[in-house]
Amino acid sequence: MAAPWAHRYAQRTKTAKSSIIRELLKLTQRPEVISFAGGLPAPEVFPVARFEKACHRVLQTQAAAALQYGPTEGYRPLREFIVGHMARYGILANVDNILITSGSQQALDLIAKLLINRGDRILVESPTYLGALQAFDLMGAEYVTVPIDDHGMQTCDMEEALRSGPKFMYILPNFQNPGGVTLSRSRRDQLVALSDKYGIPIIEDDPYGQLRYEGEHITPLVVLDRTNLARDDGYKLGNVIYLSTFSKVLAPGLRVAWIVAPPDVITKLVQLKQCSDLHTSMFSQMVVHEVARDGFMDDHVKLIRATYRERRDAMLSALQDYFPPEVSWTHPQGGLFLWVNLPPRVDSSQLLEAALRHNVAFVPGAPFFAAGDQGSHMRLNFSNAQPEQIREGIRRLAIAVAHELEHRTAAVMV
Amino acid sequence: MAAPWAHRYAQRTKTAKSSIIRELLKLTQRPEVISFAGGLPAPEVFPVARFEKACHRVLQTQAAAALQYGPTEGYRPLREFIVGHMARYGILANVDNILITSGSQQALDLIAKLLINRGDRILVESPTYLGALQAFDLMGAEYVTVPIDDHGMQTCDMEEALRSGPKFMYILPNFQNPGGVTLSRSRRDQLVALSDKYGIPIIEDDPYGQLRYEGEHITPLVVLDRTNLARDDGYKLGNVIYLSTFSKVLAPGLRVAWIVAPPDVITKLVQLKQCSDLHTSMFSQMVVHEVARDGFMDDHVKLIRATYRERRDAMLSALQDYFPPEVSWTHPQGGLFLWVNLPPRVDSSQLLEAALRHNVAFVPGAPFFAAGDQGSHMRLNFSNAQPEQIREGIRRLAIAVAHELEHRTAAVMV
Repeated sequence: MAAPWAHRYAQRTKTAKSSIIRELLKLTQRPEVISFAGGLPAPEVFPVARFEKACHRVLQTQAAAALQYGPTEGYRPLREFIVGHMARYGILANVDNILITSGSQQALDLIAKLLINRGDRILVESPTYLGALQAFDLMGAEYVTVPIDDHGMQTCDMEEALRSGPKFMYILPNFQNPGGVTLSRSRRDQLVALSDKYGIPIIEDDPYGQLRYEGEHITPLVVLDRTNLARDDGYKLGNVIYLSTFSKVLAPGLRVAWIVAPPDVITKLVQLKQCSDLHTSMFSQMVVHEVARDGFMDDHVKLIRATYRERRDAMLSALQDYFPPEVSWTHPQGGLFLWVNLPPRVDSSQLLEAALRHNVAFVPGAPFFAAGDQGSHMRLNFSNAQPEQIREGIRRLAIAVAHELEHRTAAVMV
Repeated sequence: MAAPWAHRYAQRTKTAKSSIIRELLKLTQRPEVISFAGGLPAPEVFPVARFEKACHRVLQTQAAAALQYGPTEGYRPLREFIVGHMARYGILANVDNILITSGSQQALDLIAKLLINRGDRILVESPTYLGALQAFDLMGAEYVTVPIDDHGMQTCDMEEALRSGPKFMYILPNFQNPGGVTLSRSRRDQLVALSDKYGIPIIEDDPYGQLRYEGEHITPLVVLDRTNLARDDGYKLGNVIYLSTFSKVLAPGLRVAWIVAPPDVITKLVQLKQCSDLHTSMFSQMVVHEVARDGFMDDHVKLIRATYRERRDAMLSALQDYFPPEVSWTHPQGGLFLWVNLPPRVDSSQLLEAALRHNVAFVPGAPFFAAGDQGSHMRLNFSNAQPEQIREGIRRLAIAVAHELEHRTAAVMV
């Protein structure tokens, strides 16, 4: 008996593969598994008491607004808070430049709806964030890719990609997901110059920008953008749309993020958001605002930085201690992930199966490549597990890697 | 200086008109305006104390889960609660039949993504819910329409529409938005038989089903569906996807709703939701579950019914007292809206301008018609204002109507 619906599915659903990351998260729920798979923040640093106080205050003073339908643009005091927050990073916007979204994934969905006609080429880093590829795929995107190295996207070698006429570029400049690398200042300058020269706009996705554990903050693309003529009333023109989120600095479970864009673009995105979910949970927005305000978020980010720096260092030193010399990895200056390069003969999906037998998990590199699998890679998350678990997990993973290397060598010799 | 983005907008955005309802809601924020425009629940009946207790309990006992990323399908205990809740209305589903969405608007967005290829015809009631048209428009829908009367969609006269090969039918059987009418039992039987005969599935949108103020509950289409072979493990096959929400019985501000569908369809919708917002706010879901559980929701619905019945009656009696005989309206047995038929010579947009001058607001009928404006209509909401405000608002509206009728008559005579 055939399903009565399947033959009615729209063409776009053919590209909608279930997120490997999210399916893996299910497999790794067993308590004995040490998981480097998800991009989960550390639950130990959730400011629970502050959230509780915030809920109490919101419901005591503004229950009718918190529980009622709200404006699609978002809760105005939260948008004002974001304006102030971003100004400290040089991003001069006003309230009309801000749209609150239900997590950054919704920002990607709205941008895909706004800009992508079926068959449009999007320029992405190789590798790049899987969730963006999924959102873009759904609106029929095709891709042109530019490889990354330790200094981010290789801007020196991208003019051919730009000449192929991509609709926009999607870039994660800070502590890239999955690569863990950061786009250098000189490449940022080059990138905005190229964006200007070829008239190709940029989507700058910056969920981790505040989570830097070493080195100096680097100016965002949206600030470098030559066409971004900052004025008293926010930026009017600009080649860059900027995305960020509260997920990594407060808590992801409330799904509150934001888009910064010229007012005309925001107006259009608001219309698309109306069609998508009317508005983001008012209660979530008001609670996030109440938690973040009065300088709390900046203090709290210091705690997160200290916690994650220790975890990153635990992972880097365990990799150094346990992994064989033919494996290399990136050194992230911040964020949640590092990227491991395995000898090409290792199949990282088979390695995952071996790793799960040793009760450790990661995400294989393949789904992060828009243009199909390239080499053999692992993405490792270091924010969620505690330092001693990280060391133990890397030890287990090294056993699986050694076994897989040996097995592959034997197979080649046969 | 042209905006640098506008020429890059995708084709689908051309149909994304800003919701007239939501734009109007902005205009009607002035405290002196009595608004019948929005579909806002009464804030007086929000169970604020219960929400506060629920937040406290969720954060005391499950903060790590409430603040963390969660499963796309939704919070499992909430899905289980929904299974039990629906069973009492004869809808036999299990957890695998349920997907939690960020409000019913997201359910419509996901269904549009799942089923609509550009140019597909969708069968809708005339008039029908504006938000559904907006979600369907975005994926390139076209429409075939079937008029409604006091007993809902005119099923006796729809075979030609079905023969035109619509992809699916979108129906609001209970207290329809905007019409306020309810599909009779005999028409429901006819509709599921026609759905079966022509192989055209049904999306049954039921946000208000529990809010009945008179008469008997009528069996939902999803239960009548002949192909819905209910089993121990939920329904496997079915021509009907059913939508409902907590927005009208608890609070809309948290954006928690659900879809009931065969497991294969749920699997596909989960993939689409992953691309759209990863998951609905875990905190919202857990708080809604904590508020709704232990029989609270059913008790609370009794309070809402009593409150809204009084408001509906206040509106019906004020209409009777103040409106001229050439104006007619529907008598809703439940829900939030009634529908007013004005003489065709009245332009309801111009009437709205006149009404706003008298500090009263409504939604003109035009945007609810998929096939373009038909006649002159108003949608009036009776859930948000208090009975004495309703009476005063209808009095003001009657003045605007009388003036407009006189003006139009004069114009015709000239």
